[in-house]
Amino acid sequence: MRNICLTLAYDGTDYAGWQVQPDAPTVQQQLEAAIHALSGQQVRVLSAGRTDAGVHAFGQVANFRIESTIPPEKWQPALQSKLPHNIVVRESREVDMEFHATYSAQSKRYRYVIMNRRLDDPFLRRYCWKIDQPLDAGAMHQAAQALLGKHDFRCFESHWPNKATSVRTILDVSVQRLSGWPAWSPQPIAATSAESDGEFIVLEIEADGFLYNMVRAITGTLVEVGRGKWPVDVMRDIVEAGERGKAGPTAPPQGLALVCVNYGGSAGPA
Amino acid sequence: MRNICLTLAYDGTDYAGWQVQPDAPTVQQQLEAAIHALSGQQVRVLSAGRTDAGVHAFGQVANFRIESTIPPEKWQPALQSKLPHNIVVRESREVDMEFHATYSAQSKRYRYVIMNRRLDDPFLRRYCWKIDQPLDAGAMHQAAQALLGKHDFRCFESHWPNKATSVRTILDVSVQRLSGWPAWSPQPIAATSAESDGEFIVLEIEADGFLYNMVRAITGTLVEVGRGKWPVDVMRDIVEAGERGKAGPTAPPQGLALVCVNYGGSAGPA
Repeated sequence: MRNICLTLAYDGTDYAGWQVQPDAPTVQQQLEAAIHALSGQQVRVLSAGRTDAGVHAFGQVANFRIESTIPPEKWQPALQSKLPHNIVVRESREVDMEFHATYSAQSKRYRYVIMNRRLDDPFLRRYCWKIDQPLDAGAMHQAAQALLGKHDFRCFESHWPNKATSVRTILDVSVQRLSGWPAWSPQPIAATSAESDGEFIVLEIEADGFLYNMVRAITGTLVEVGRGKWPVDVMRDIVEAGERGKAGPTAPPQGLALVCVNYGGSAGPA
Repeated sequence: MRNICLTLAYDGTDYAGWQVQPDAPTVQQQLEAAIHALSGQQVRVLSAGRTDAGVHAFGQVANFRIESTIPPEKWQPALQSKLPHNIVVRESREVDMEFHATYSAQSKRYRYVIMNRRLDDPFLRRYCWKIDQPLDAGAMHQAAQALLGKHDFRCFESHWPNKATSVRTILDVSVQRLSGWPAWSPQPIAATSAESDGEFIVLEIEADGFLYNMVRAITGTLVEVGRGKWPVDVMRDIVEAGERGKAGPTAPPQGLALVCVNYGGSAGPA
């Protein structure tokens, strides 16, 4: 038995999210079907983050345990040959049997891209939220800093309570204006690269875990600050109130992507 | 009666090309339906280049004649409000009644993008031809120079003879290796920007007109040179032979895009 770890990128536009569903195509289902086609075995593929319908991934991590003669590094080309073009296996490798893509993760990083102050674009529209009104990215960044650290984030959770606890630790959060197209890279975007006249606003957020729809609710709330509707110091009040209704709307899915997953030590991928 | 000129960008992936067809969605049909929704009138929209199924456009130009109170520049937002996100109207303006997007064009510029020496990418795959074998972009560029000038290009025309004459004049052609994603811009790519280690190979070609599938046949032929299968000086022989069977295969549509259209004088858009 081997534990195979995959690094994945996918365009979530045409999928009903990561998780297998009875009547809709999902990324998990595509991967499990590809593994079945190659090995004849039905295995469960687990991922670091169960991305929602329409959400993308640049550096998703997944693993599965299988008895197979396929060498670990050969799963990459083998799976790719069975997958549609909108799911790409960047790497395959063997990991410790204890490695679990979900539970071994120390932190995950998401990116949300807003197209702002710009004519529409038929190519990038699949990967961002278009907002015509100019937003104050500096105010959004400042407001977001109140989220850093360990808090009960139930105010940003849809359908609360879904989990045993809604306490999470946000390790890093930034909002920047960029002129170049920032997405599709599994590398974090440096906070020094902001440009005052850029057409894109990019939120990056890293935490030890996320609640359901949390990044999209944070984005929707920060946009209200960027519009000038809410003050820069509103975030602390919203977190303290602990009510979803006090925060802003949930941003649409297509602007969101899982950037990368951090496993710390040597158990999984770097 | 006014003659309205549009500059358009579109993602051709989900369209059966520009031209109206009985049972498939096309760009022309979407535009004519949007105009009908706004004005109640059935008009014909004509474009500079009838792009094929799956082919994109960054700076397509089209025009239509209509009796309407909508100010020329207001057609841009009005049409956009009726169009799907994969078709974008960049600009609308009034032009001389004599202006005809097809016949007034002095030249058109196309771009073909090959993804080479690179891991797959689920986002860019819709917009390029992926070739794993490293290609010699310098040899492709050198070979392409034999196409410059006025020639009978029937060797690159599918279903010849489609037109009264297959003589065309190629005004500019270049093949370059680039590291950054080169597509989606309606600006020509400067020939000085080549990088020896880039992951993309970009063909740009400008001519007074193109035959059916001509750019894709030229690309497929240049790729055979890039692979080292054919010598750099093969293009002259192929043009002189004048037989489609002597040239290379037709490259797939998704790597191709109409970049911009040149109308010279003051009749149409710059």
